[in-house]
Parts: sequence; structure tokens; C-alpha cells
Amino acid sequence: MEIKQVENVKFISGGVCAAKGFKANGVQCGLVHAGASVTGKKNDLAMIVADKECTAAAVYTTNKVKGAPILVTKEHLKNGKAKAVIVNSVNANTCNPDGVEKANKMCQLAAAELGISEDDVIVASTGVIGQVLPIEPIAKGVKPLAEGLSYDGNAKALEAIMTTDTMPKEIAVEFEMGGKTCTLGGMLKGSGMIHPNMATTLTFLTTDADISAELIQRALSDIVKVTLNRASVDGDTSTNDMVCIMANGMAGNAPVVDEGPDFGKFCHALYAIMMNLARMMARDGEGATKLVECAVCGAENDKIAETVAKSVITSSLFKAMIFGEDANAGRIYCAIGYSDADFDVNKVDIEIASKAGKITVGHQGCLVEFSENTAKKVLAEEEIQVLIDLNSGNGRAMAWGCDLTYDYVKINGDYRS
Amino acid sequence: MEIKQVENVKFISGGVCAAKGFKANGVQCGLVHAGASVTGKKNDLAMIVADKECTAAAVYTTNKVKGAPILVTKEHLKNGKAKAVIVNSVNANTCNPDGVEKANKMCQLAAAELGISEDDVIVASTGVIGQVLPIEPIAKGVKPLAEGLSYDGNAKALEAIMTTDTMPKEIAVEFEMGGKTCTLGGMLKGSGMIHPNMATTLTFLTTDADISAELIQRALSDIVKVTLNRASVDGDTSTNDMVCIMANGMAGNAPVVDEGPDFGKFCHALYAIMMNLARMMARDGEGATKLVECAVCGAENDKIAETVAKSVITSSLFKAMIFGEDANAGRIYCAIGYSDADFDVNKVDIEIASKAGKITVGHQGCLVEFSENTAKKVLAEEEIQVLIDLNSGNGRAMAWGCDLTYDYVKINGDYRS
Repeated sequence: MEIKQVENVKFISGGVCAAKGFKANGVQCGLVHAGASVTGKKNDLAMIVADKECTAAAVYTTNKVKGAPILVTKEHLKNGKAKAVIVNSVNANTCNPDGVEKANKMCQLAAAELGISEDDVIVASTGVIGQVLPIEPIAKGVKPLAEGLSYDGNAKALEAIMTTDTMPKEIAVEFEMGGKTCTLGGMLKGSGMIHPNMATTLTFLTTDADISAELIQRALSDIVKVTLNRASVDGDTSTNDMVCIMANGMAGNAPVVDEGPDFGKFCHALYAIMMNLARMMARDGEGATKLVECAVCGAENDKIAETVAKSVITSSLFKAMIFGEDANAGRIYCAIGYSDADFDVNKVDIEIASKAGKITVGHQGCLVEFSENTAKKVLAEEEIQVLIDLNSGNGRAMAWGCDLTYDYVKINGDYRS
Repeated sequence: MEIKQVENVKFISGGVCAAKGFKANGVQCGLVHAGASVTGKKNDLAMIVADKECTAAAVYTTNKVKGAPILVTKEHLKNGKAKAVIVNSVNANTCNPDGVEKANKMCQLAAAELGISEDDVIVASTGVIGQVLPIEPIAKGVKPLAEGLSYDGNAKALEAIMTTDTMPKEIAVEFEMGGKTCTLGGMLKGSGMIHPNMATTLTFLTTDADISAELIQRALSDIVKVTLNRASVDGDTSTNDMVCIMANGMAGNAPVVDEGPDFGKFCHALYAIMMNLARMMARDGEGATKLVECAVCGAENDKIAETVAKSVITSSLFKAMIFGEDANAGRIYCAIGYSDADFDVNKVDIEIASKAGKITVGHQGCLVEFSENTAKKVLAEEEIQVLIDLNSGNGRAMAWGCDLTYDYVKINGDYRS
């Protein structure tokens, strides 16, 4: 899929290794599902390591059931500092009696190998819930993992965090701040259990910008709200989701310590990264064949626009209709109508657009006639836009989702074994 | 599927015609989808008519986009009186500029044919949204419809309200009130667009009990909350959903005019009917192969129990897992964890049960080992119970849902044409 361009940033390659002073690696340490007969054929353990101690921040899942790694990482980031990430896939280390002990052990193993403090390690796990995490494969794998760290190891690391993802998701940008070129990059694993109002998926971000721990947390918390928290695959909020960022300051910019213009530039770059990661995540939702971008305007305020946009992209009937390439505006009005926000439905206009064109499907709360032929062409594209005008103000919001397909059911009807 | 028995009521046949003094009928008047090449092969227009004027009440969809028939019925029921229902399927008469005019016309046609006041007619429509309702087929069909009314016409009427339903859903009970035998019966159309927090689907109820308009409204509003509003198919709240009840008083009981013991008996009978209709609706969710009953106990209050039960039955990941017959308690803990209620997840126990047995899958927030063999047998059944104990109090609630299947996607990927 195409990157959505944003002004004043330049998209580059390199993912989490794009910024100066970050190494990464991934190995196959041999974690297996209980019940699965063979080991996966891909990397399952990754590290990202900074050359210098970083300011760091994270946003976590809002699920009351929290994976053990979340609890440990929260502790480690209390001081706003970190130097490395260790993360495994296959096993989520969640709903296990010894989860915290194992998550701590992962940090100890990484710290010992890297010669850093255990407290400077961010730990994350993704995969099946409720199976005891075997620590032996990780204890064995951490040495070759650390030895293989390199400044272009992003792809290996990225492979290790993927679960039902069908495509790697990484991105990086260069931007100017205080006369210096700064770089910010990231990778994300997504697919299922993805829903607005959470920290959404495992996302690792790195930057060589110099920015205080307080401000990097503020930037991350704000921008998650309008990017990852605006993407939904299936309405399920995972127990293990986390997005974290490390900034090592090696770009040499004047440290960002207040909400001045430089902070604005940093937030803009972070938005460019996270908005694109949110789109990639929605597009690669389990079983998805299409990305849907819902843009609502004309709302009395942004909050109302957000509520409406999320209601549309999470509607099962709407999602199935997008899969069927059917321009049934009735389902869009229906989802708009049950959104928990206050507005006049009799003013609402709806258009559906894609590369292939644009059709008006609803006007002032009523369906309108359109060319079925054009509709067919518009909906055959991989990226579909639904444009909703509430005609009641200047509030606006975007949200991203995907279609609901046979493959979603297939993947989730038998994920565990 | 089996009727769930309730004490002190006797389940009988007859649906909306079970109570004394109610006739019904259904005909094929020839409504078609725009775009569909052939007329449906089933009845599409129904009437239910009472021998005497009834006290009547209704609960409507909470969707801000409301079908025109909803607006007209609301007006007609302001006085708490009704004598007849006219309802069509195929076309929802919603999001059309002339919807109210057409819904009024349906009432006029029915009233003229029956020699009653237009104001005593309840009107409802279900089907595709946003296509102008052609009134000619209805104008032509209403005469044979009225002429064919009979005291055993419930099945013909029921056929006429079905859309993607795969099985007819009707039920009736006898119960004793004030020394008299009273009867209460009903029919329901369901399938897609069904979600808690709405009036849910088209449901028509009739009784020969003598009960005031105020109390019948109170009974209906209360019992909808713990029955139809506890059932979910796909999380979508329709624009046209309505449940209405008519009471003609022909059982000869002493009129129920206060909240004494007789009112309690009436509510109990209404619960027996509506709980079973809710179960049937969930079981016949679009594409569903299984009914899931989620029973939560041990909550600090009933509201928390309800929130948890609904969160589980609406989770796409949980629903796909039920389809796959996989006992993945991690997904149940996940859905419990993101429910918007306050409790200690580390106290939560989970069991899965069916006719074939019962397994404990979670204890105190952690997954426990169980016999995969027993799990397979338990999950192979058509009715699955998920029993969740929050171990924090005496609050309890039940909710009903279904599995998420390939057929849901198929049905909804191309419903319009």
C-alpha cells in the first residue's frame, strides 16, 4: 500500500534503525504453541538497542487484564529512561501465574548480555494468552540475538514481532528541527484484537532527536489518540498492547524541553509516522482485503466527528458490505445513527471515494441514486474513503478500518492450535 | 432449539394467535428489491387484528436514524390504544424522503379495510434501507390480507415478517392471574443488525390479559432490558426495530391497575416469552450455528454483571472461537478485561458448559489446564454456556449471542442485491 504523504517530512527506509545510534536484530529462538506440533518458521525474539541512554515513554492497553510484560515495562519506565527493548512473539505471557517473574527474567537476560541495567530494558510479548512462557529458548536465544545486533537489523527484528500479520509494517521520516536533521522511525505488529481506545498493538519507535522524557510522553500520549486509537480491526482490545518510543539525542539538536515550535515539529513527524502505521495496521487487519478511511467533517466539535467515524468503521454490517463491494448507504446511515453523539441526522451527506472516482450516496439523511457502474469501480479499489459531512460545524476526525471477510473468521476460528 | 423452561408458566403453541381474540394473516403482495430480478417467494405483508380495542405499548430502536414507520407508530400509540398491526418485509421504508407519507398510507389502507380508526393501527417495516416503498403492492394486497384473517393465521403472518431469518420464531404461554387463565404469545423477526441497547428487531406480542396501558408499557420497557437488549448478533443497532404488545382483556381477569401480585405474574409470563424470543433471535443470528448464553455472577452489582456478559458475547474474537469450537479462555479473559466496569480481574473464574458437560478454563485470572477431549465434546453442542464468576458480590446477569461464521460474511457481503 502507498504511504500517505505529509508535508515537511521526508519518508525514508530503515524502520527502527533509521535514526542514528539504534541497532536491532531478530532470531528464531524456538518458542512454540502448546498443542502445535512444529516450531514456527520465522524469527520469534527481537531486540532494539540504543548506543546511548534514551529518554523513553510508552502508552499501554486499557484492558484490565494486562500482560505481565506491561506491568514490568511500566515499572522500568517510571524514571523516563531506557536503553533496550526485548520482545518475543508466539506467547503473550498473559494470564499466567508466573508471568511477572518470566517478564523480569527476560529483562535480566537482556541486561546481562548487553551490560546494562535491568531497569533500562523495555519488555513486550505477543501471541497466545494463558500458556506458561518457557524461558529456556529465550535464555538460549539472547546471546546470538545480542551478538547479531546491527544498524540495519530492523527487518530481522520486525519479522520477530509479527504474528498473523501478512506484511511487515515499518516506516521512518527525516525532519528538520533547530537546524539539524532528525530521524524518527518505527515498526508495528497488528492484525487482530485491535480497537480504538487502547494503546493498540506492539509499536516500537526510535528517534535520534533530543527531547525530554516529559515531552516525549506528552507527544506520544496525544498522538496515539488521533492515530492508533482511531484504527480498528475487530473491536477487541488486547491485553498486551503497547507503543513505546526511545530518543537517544544523537541528532545533536538543541534539546526540546518546552512546548515551543520544535516540539510542534517533533509532534508533526510523530503524527506522520503513527498515522501511516495506523493505516498499515488497519489494512493488514486479520483477513482484510481493503483499507477503509472514514473522514467526518462538519461536526459541532471534533469529539462528535470522532464518535461518528469510529461507529462507521467498527460496524460489522458496514465492514461486510465493503468486502462485498456494495454501496449500501443505508448501512452507513444506520451506523452513523447509532453512534453515541448528538447531531441532526437529517443534515448528513455521504460520499464514497477511491482512486477510481467518487459517488454521492446520501444527501440530507436520505439515500440518493447513483451510477451502479461507477460505484462498482470505486469500490473495487484497495483503499476506500467514506466521507461524511454532518453539516453542523467545523469539527472533523478520521478513523481507519478494514473489511470483514471469510478469512477473518477462518483465522480466528482456529488460532490457538 | 429447545424452549428454556420457566416455572409457573406453560408453553403452548399458537404464537400471536394463542391468546383469545386475535386474528392474523400474511400474504405475498409482491414487494421487490430494486435491483433484484425476481419477487421473493414468500409472504411479505402481515396483519394482526384484535377483536376488541387493546391497551398497547411499544419500545423503539435507540438509533437516531429512525424508520418512518417508527415515527408513525409512536404517534398512534400516544393514547395507549391500538387494534391492529400492519407490517411488511423486503423494504424498511427508512431514509426515504416520502417515508412518513407511505407509512401513514399503510395505516389508512389497513384501517379502511378493517373499518377501524387509522390511529388504532401499529405500522412496521423491515428490509432494505433507502429504497422508496412502492405503495401499490400493499394497496392491492391489503384486501386479501384482511379477508384471510383467522384465529390460526400466526404462521402466515410470521412468514411475512422474516427477512434473512432461517427459522420461524414464535412462542406462547398460559399463566394464571386472579383465578383466570391468561395467555400471552408473540413472534419475532431477527437475524442481522441486532445489538443490546435498542428495542431490538420486530417483535409483536398479544395477550388476552386485562392490564392498563401504563402498566403494560412499564412491564414491556423493564423486560426488554433483560431480554432482547441482552442479545447481540453483530453489534449493529437497526433503524427500524420495535417491540409492541397489545392486550385485549378477553381473559376476564380483574384488571391489573397497580404493581401488586398480578402485575408480578404478568411480568413473569412476559419474561418467559421474551427471554425465549431473545434466545431464538441470537441462535438465528445471520450465519450463526450456535447459541451462546453468557451468565455472569458474583458481581458487585447487576450492572457490572451485565456489562461483562455483553462484552463477552459481542467480542468478534470470542465469537469466531465458538465457531471454531476452540476453548481459548484467553479470549474470554480479554473480553472481560476490556469491559467498561470496575472489578478485580484476578478473582475471575470461567467455566464453559453444554449438554455434554462442563470444563473449568480459568481460575483467579489465570488459565487452567483441562481435558481437550472434554472441551471438544462440550463445544461441539449447539448451545454453549459461558459461566463467569467475578467472586466479588451477588450481582448477576445473562446475555445471549451467537458465533461468527463464514456465512455471516457471505450474507452481509451482498444483501442488497
